[in-house]
Amino acid sequence: MTDDTLPDSSKKLAAIDLGSNSFHLLIVEYSNGHIKTLEKRGEKVQLADGMDKDGCLSDAAMARAMTCLELFAHFIDGIGADDIRIVGTNALRTASNSDDFLARAQALLDHDVEIISGREEARLIYLGAAHALAEGKGRRLVADIGGGSTEFIIGEHFTPLALESLDMGCVVYTDRFFADGAITDKNFRQAEREARSELANIKRAYQKLGWQDPIGTSGTIRAAAEVLEQHGQTEGGVVTREGLDWLKKRLIKQNDLHSLSLDGLKASRARVFPAGVAVLRAIFDVFKLERLRYANGALREGVINDLIGRDTDQDPRNNSLDALTTRFDVDTQQQHNVRESARQAFEHLAKSWSLTNAHWRYLDWAARVHELGLAISHAKFHRHGSYILEYADLAGFSRPEQQLLAFLVRAHRRKFPLRELNALPERRRLPFLRLAVILRLAVLLNHSRDDDPFTDFGLTAEGDTLELTLPDDALLRIIDAERECHYLSDTGLTLTVSTYPASDSPHTSSHLQ
Amino acid sequence: MTDDTLPDSSKKLAAIDLGSNSFHLLIVEYSNGHIKTLEKRGEKVQLADGMDKDGCLSDAAMARAMTCLELFAHFIDGIGADDIRIVGTNALRTASNSDDFLARAQALLDHDVEIISGREEARLIYLGAAHALAEGKGRRLVADIGGGSTEFIIGEHFTPLALESLDMGCVVYTDRFFADGAITDKNFRQAEREARSELANIKRAYQKLGWQDPIGTSGTIRAAAEVLEQHGQTEGGVVTREGLDWLKKRLIKQNDLHSLSLDGLKASRARVFPAGVAVLRAIFDVFKLERLRYANGALREGVINDLIGRDTDQDPRNNSLDALTTRFDVDTQQQHNVRESARQAFEHLAKSWSLTNAHWRYLDWAARVHELGLAISHAKFHRHGSYILEYADLAGFSRPEQQLLAFLVRAHRRKFPLRELNALPERRRLPFLRLAVILRLAVLLNHSRDDDPFTDFGLTAEGDTLELTLPDDALLRIIDAERECHYLSDTGLTLTVSTYPASDSPHTSSHLQ
Repeated sequence: MTDDTLPDSSKKLAAIDLGSNSFHLLIVEYSNGHIKTLEKRGEKVQLADGMDKDGCLSDAAMARAMTCLELFAHFIDGIGADDIRIVGTNALRTASNSDDFLARAQALLDHDVEIISGREEARLIYLGAAHALAEGKGRRLVADIGGGSTEFIIGEHFTPLALESLDMGCVVYTDRFFADGAITDKNFRQAEREARSELANIKRAYQKLGWQDPIGTSGTIRAAAEVLEQHGQTEGGVVTREGLDWLKKRLIKQNDLHSLSLDGLKASRARVFPAGVAVLRAIFDVFKLERLRYANGALREGVINDLIGRDTDQDPRNNSLDALTTRFDVDTQQQHNVRESARQAFEHLAKSWSLTNAHWRYLDWAARVHELGLAISHAKFHRHGSYILEYADLAGFSRPEQQLLAFLVRAHRRKFPLRELNALPERRRLPFLRLAVILRLAVLLNHSRDDDPFTDFGLTAEGDTLELTLPDDALLRIIDAERECHYLSDTGLTLTVSTYPASDSPHTSSHLQ
Repeated sequence: MTDDTLPDSSKKLAAIDLGSNSFHLLIVEYSNGHIKTLEKRGEKVQLADGMDKDGCLSDAAMARAMTCLELFAHFIDGIGADDIRIVGTNALRTASNSDDFLARAQALLDHDVEIISGREEARLIYLGAAHALAEGKGRRLVADIGGGSTEFIIGEHFTPLALESLDMGCVVYTDRFFADGAITDKNFRQAEREARSELANIKRAYQKLGWQDPIGTSGTIRAAAEVLEQHGQTEGGVVTREGLDWLKKRLIKQNDLHSLSLDGLKASRARVFPAGVAVLRAIFDVFKLERLRYANGALREGVINDLIGRDTDQDPRNNSLDALTTRFDVDTQQQHNVRESARQAFEHLAKSWSLTNAHWRYLDWAARVHELGLAISHAKFHRHGSYILEYADLAGFSRPEQQLLAFLVRAHRRKFPLRELNALPERRRLPFLRLAVILRLAVLLNHSRDDDPFTDFGLTAEGDTLELTLPDDALLRIIDAERECHYLSDTGLTLTVSTYPASDSPHTSSHLQ
């Protein structure tokens, strides 16, 4: 078993972006650093449209969504779980019935669907934009106006320096400020005022970082650039301040949202376009922009590039956990010791317990962060660590991944949390029970916090029966292991502990590095 | 209003320690740096005794506790809420019916009763011991064997360097290892083995810190020293390794727990003494001690000294919050700005809203920590900050204080958390609703994160009606305040916003420092 596996010479990767305005599908072939697009589709599902006061997705929106996903399902047939990522954004973050949506979507697509945080969305958008923009031109500001949220990123090359997601977007602002169906100066002013208020949250921090190259991604900005170009206002995919003034006047002249029509504007975009333009105008205003150029890469391209990154030593998830353990001041020696004992236990059990490299990845992560909660309190620190892992913005992690990791940390000591185990998706329960048991054993074997990992143990499993062998002079570990037999009796697993004469130890000098 | 008020020239202070073995009362008169004991009482309530498998305090233990508290209630009559602290330790930390206990105890004593964490207990014990030991003799190890937990502290002068609380004690170990009523070598060995396993958790960290002067506090150690002295084994309140070997043999010779009697051992201590000696022997063993001297100060003395400290610029609570904001990397400029706006709002409203200096303290604290949760995630960061404040080991804070502070942080933005407000003790609801509203206004007025606090506002209240006056050019603040009117409508408060011409601003240069 190795930590890092080299990418296959050629594989198919897929990203699906379940946006508040549109759903997008992107399928590529990745081969030796080269990405070739196989399939690209976008559907104006307008999921956020008609969401009621309780934040419930409307039946009509749900039906449109499922029709679209039935279509997408054909394209992703046969793609493995590690080669696809399906992400939902603001409409699903805020919908009260998103669980219902997820269940139906997962059944249709036969893959996990994850709702990502605003910051993760911003990170992925930047990754998509950075790969689309051939080379770095100093510091970039990237703005992506979505249906329900707008992401702002400042970054250099492939590294984001600031990531924010604000609650404003072309679909929700259409509902809030253009609900009367009229394109008026008053509606524009109210929408812009509200957007400026949102932007005030990040204005100073972003101005302090500064940028040379303002970039816009997403449909609203592309549409604005296209309309301006068709009318001879700008060229080359650029939006200017004067262009936006002209555009606002033109839109108000048309007056009726439902009959809005302009050269360069797709009919399916028209209804949410004035609200998008209002948000864009507020961005120009607050950040004092003169021009913004449209770039092609966005969320779905970011997801693809992120999937590629996971197969290299650049896995962003490792960097996220490193940042977390530094911030929460985790004992790195203990982290290492538990990881090495867990590695040995995993190697002993992987075959008989059908555990894969993907499972080892979770165990490795969990060993690194299991003591996170000590930064809050020693009492119940497994719960605090689990809370942090559940809610933290961890770049690169999906929410289901974070939940599984949070479960392992929750389960690593004391009474086994059966309720939390049973709350996992069914197919996860057995392997994650087993991973949790391995982590528990690794932690208890290193209970005395020695300088080196404890690896002088044997471990075998036959189904639900586990036998741990310890040197007979490891008295404290034997006591702890006996207590663990009791803890595990609730889980349906049987742990037995036996000893061998310490003088015979076959393991004494076999510490793994 | 000032932040720090000087101590009165003379005041009565009280501490009650609701231990797992004994309840203690200490009343002192404090005057110009001098502490005079007025009353000192201890009752062997043995609260942890007979706790059932579900962790339920027995009816008999509950009855003994209430009889004792009825007695204590007479002594504390007339002492103000700021001059008394009543703390519960391990038995109450673990009891499943501690809420029931708290309700009855609070009704009897007419004061808040708080359950403190193991680390807070350790901190207070060290404070008590450090004050009892006239002068520093280098680094000290302090061990306090309680009924349900045993605290270990390494410290210098008045500063603890390591604080731990382990789940072992003379009452719970009597139940676990001497339940058969026999004082046998086997029972001793099992108890010592388990205690050594607990101690393995902290052994290395403590040995790394090291100490010159091992000290024991609490009844078990005092009793051991007294028995040894009465039998000519040691003198001067010292326990030695040889003395403990002698003591174990003597105890085994007596064999029957219920008839145990030794010169120097009080009858009320006898039943739990062998288990206490077993714990003490394990401590000698693991820490390789040769001798330990008994010191008089303990938890209750620590509580008194802590109450005194709160009236000075050494309030440990401020240090705790400073440590927390450093660890979680809080934006100090924003912290300062919100605090200054909150201070001005508080000054405008304190009189009409009957808010006191004690209330200001909460608002001051909350302003400093309201952005704590950003270290976890931007999404719902008010909830994350509130979680940290509820569970963190914050030296000097009681649990009720932490809960009130957690509430203010929970309530500082977005929808007003009415459910959490209604979960507060009734007398806290109205003032903490008002404090939360002041904090919300201070936060929204500094929403744009400027270099200076925003103080150009007026604020008046008449009962539940609040009027905020802003300069007419503060457009974004006006929008935010209007949104706040809507949020507050759920609380029964009415906020109205009016403007004055910016050019007239009477406040422009009145930033408070």
